[in-house]
Amino acid sequence: MPDLRGPSRRAREIGQFHVMALLARAKELEAQGRSIVHMEIGEPDFPTARPIVEAGIRALEAGRTSYTAATGLPELRRAIAGFYRARYGLAVPAERIVITTGGSAALLLACAALVDPGDEVLLADPGYPCNRQFVRVMEGVPRAVPVDAAVEYQVTPGLLERHWTPRTRAVLIATPSNPTGTLVAAERLAAMAAIAGTRGGALIVDETYHGLVYEDACASAAGLPGDVFAVNSFSKYFGMTGWRLGWLVVPERHLAAVERLAQNVYLAPPTPAQYAALAAFEPGTVALLDKRRDAFRARRDYLVPALRALGFEIPVAPRGAFYVYAGCPDGVADSFAFSRELLEEAGVAVTPGADFGANAPQRHVRFAYTNCLEKLAEGVARIAAFLDTGRV
Amino acid sequence: MPDLRGPSRRAREIGQFHVMALLARAKELEAQGRSIVHMEIGEPDFPTARPIVEAGIRALEAGRTSYTAATGLPELRRAIAGFYRARYGLAVPAERIVITTGGSAALLLACAALVDPGDEVLLADPGYPCNRQFVRVMEGVPRAVPVDAAVEYQVTPGLLERHWTPRTRAVLIATPSNPTGTLVAAERLAAMAAIAGTRGGALIVDETYHGLVYEDACASAAGLPGDVFAVNSFSKYFGMTGWRLGWLVVPERHLAAVERLAQNVYLAPPTPAQYAALAAFEPGTVALLDKRRDAFRARRDYLVPALRALGFEIPVAPRGAFYVYAGCPDGVADSFAFSRELLEEAGVAVTPGADFGANAPQRHVRFAYTNCLEKLAEGVARIAAFLDTGRV
Repeated sequence: MPDLRGPSRRAREIGQFHVMALLARAKELEAQGRSIVHMEIGEPDFPTARPIVEAGIRALEAGRTSYTAATGLPELRRAIAGFYRARYGLAVPAERIVITTGGSAALLLACAALVDPGDEVLLADPGYPCNRQFVRVMEGVPRAVPVDAAVEYQVTPGLLERHWTPRTRAVLIATPSNPTGTLVAAERLAAMAAIAGTRGGALIVDETYHGLVYEDACASAAGLPGDVFAVNSFSKYFGMTGWRLGWLVVPERHLAAVERLAQNVYLAPPTPAQYAALAAFEPGTVALLDKRRDAFRARRDYLVPALRALGFEIPVAPRGAFYVYAGCPDGVADSFAFSRELLEEAGVAVTPGADFGANAPQRHVRFAYTNCLEKLAEGVARIAAFLDTGRV
Repeated sequence: MPDLRGPSRRAREIGQFHVMALLARAKELEAQGRSIVHMEIGEPDFPTARPIVEAGIRALEAGRTSYTAATGLPELRRAIAGFYRARYGLAVPAERIVITTGGSAALLLACAALVDPGDEVLLADPGYPCNRQFVRVMEGVPRAVPVDAAVEYQVTPGLLERHWTPRTRAVLIATPSNPTGTLVAAERLAAMAAIAGTRGGALIVDETYHGLVYEDACASAAGLPGDVFAVNSFSKYFGMTGWRLGWLVVPERHLAAVERLAQNVYLAPPTPAQYAALAAFEPGTVALLDKRRDAFRARRDYLVPALRALGFEIPVAPRGAFYVYAGCPDGVADSFAFSRELLEEAGVAVTPGADFGANAPQRHVRFAYTNCLEKLAEGVARIAAFLDTGRV
């Protein structure tokens, strides 16, 4: 009698986020009465804005609990088209906007629609770990493009030309990037769409952190011609993490395929969340969300120089999202051990570089400024004291 | 310059549900002022029960809008464990219960955790179309096991032994089944788990329609030993379709893999839905849901003899879910054309057999009794008149 077969290769290859073990340990310490400053969590510390919550409650009161179409509520798709017009000056037809169960489902659908087994997808390293796993789940091969401060931690048109091979199906860009907070300029997005297009391939742009950008107008890929998929989320700027809602802008020629995949794999995105999100584009809500964005900017403006003063290397200041990707101070050889010691000894939780790829992860940590200024200052003071003890 | 590559093979092979085109046409006709009796829709016609809605509203009022753990709220996992104890007399540890974004995500996670490219999964034909697509999305090969009235439209231990090959990774059973409403007895589930186990493989049981069972105690696979995955949903019996919530009972040895997949592919299931679902197991809610189940039974008890009287063949009366899978009356050679004519001429929408597989689909249609008795009677009268005109 044969042994039971183990999990699939994909299931074995997809790793745990290291930050999860760290978070579990942080909670253990807190349960023991220790004070922990959280600078590891990739979720805004603000609850969902009141007008959005109220729209959700009204929808529930009105009995809006049935399935919507697989592609989402038509009025929400139109509202997002209006958002592209108003905020970006882009004409994106509502028909090309597919509502999804979070940015996660948008990324999965894009990969499911494009990637055949063995197809390669290029991604910046360091980068958000799930993005390469969507490729892997679809039996594609994620190919890391190592990026550093010299290219602002982003794939450039030059790097794209150098790394594209006949096996490449697409390139996945994230702007602003998690973990580095850097952006890709409009003309570079257009150039990379053109490079992918001349090779028969596609450009996927993860715009999950759009809206949380601090001095620049952030370019969207949603208006570019060719096989360009733009992913966005209601989680970060719109502050709707737990509701699980996002969207995918789909090239016309892939629409039917994406709709069939959405029908079969998801049936439909969550209905209460979709009605709630209709309130996200109202002027009163936008004013509120922009204020929160300004609070994130103030935190970044405090945190980046404070970390530099402690010896952390931040060669490119983040311009969006809510992360600082920093080289560890001299004497720290292993960012993973450093993260654990920082938690155990100093009561500060940060994310080790190992979660973001294989490009010098042992030298880097990620700080999230999803915590109020007072807590961030407390965290910085604890790290300073920890470094002063000469333990590193 | 090469042409842009088209959608992936998977995206091209996954078909549209035929019922979608029919539904769109039904809506067109309604927009023109025609009256349509809907007997095609696989969604309960009841809104979510008030205690569940109220729990959702309370959660929103309390600001419960953040991510939960990828495996779901611990208190909901415990509540489901309590449900297995109370309703089935089964001891299922809460740690093995993973909350998912609908039954869809539970099925996708089970397939992602088990299926390597080329692995085959056995499924009854006729069967719910998405189930074979979850296998296909993971680059597995869905293998139809043709089933008929003689085996109550279910895979049996004998059929399983006959169809299992060295390429088979798992068998996916649905009880009650969509579209046939038939069940699998406890001892047969156990026998099939054992057969799969002795071959190193897994049993996946889709229990989405559990709770909507009319005279039998419906056996759950959740307590069986070996590599047995049980899928359930808050959509049908619990009436929470649009909230997108379900769960997966995972064998101990696959738990870590399923958790990693859930983290990467979904992040977490919707938070408001999870808090709302906590109210689903309260005695007052259960009494309400059981009343709705009784309403479905009354509809079945009306519809089955009424359709038989019109010449539809229903050799095995459905014992659960809310569907009747019927052979068309003599003279109907093409159920697809029949469905279209029934809609256009008689104003009755039903689902053609083609949506459920390749096993004599042209002879069958599915009626859903997700409509009140008065409407069902109106539908039956219209079909009777249509058949009387001698058009078929």
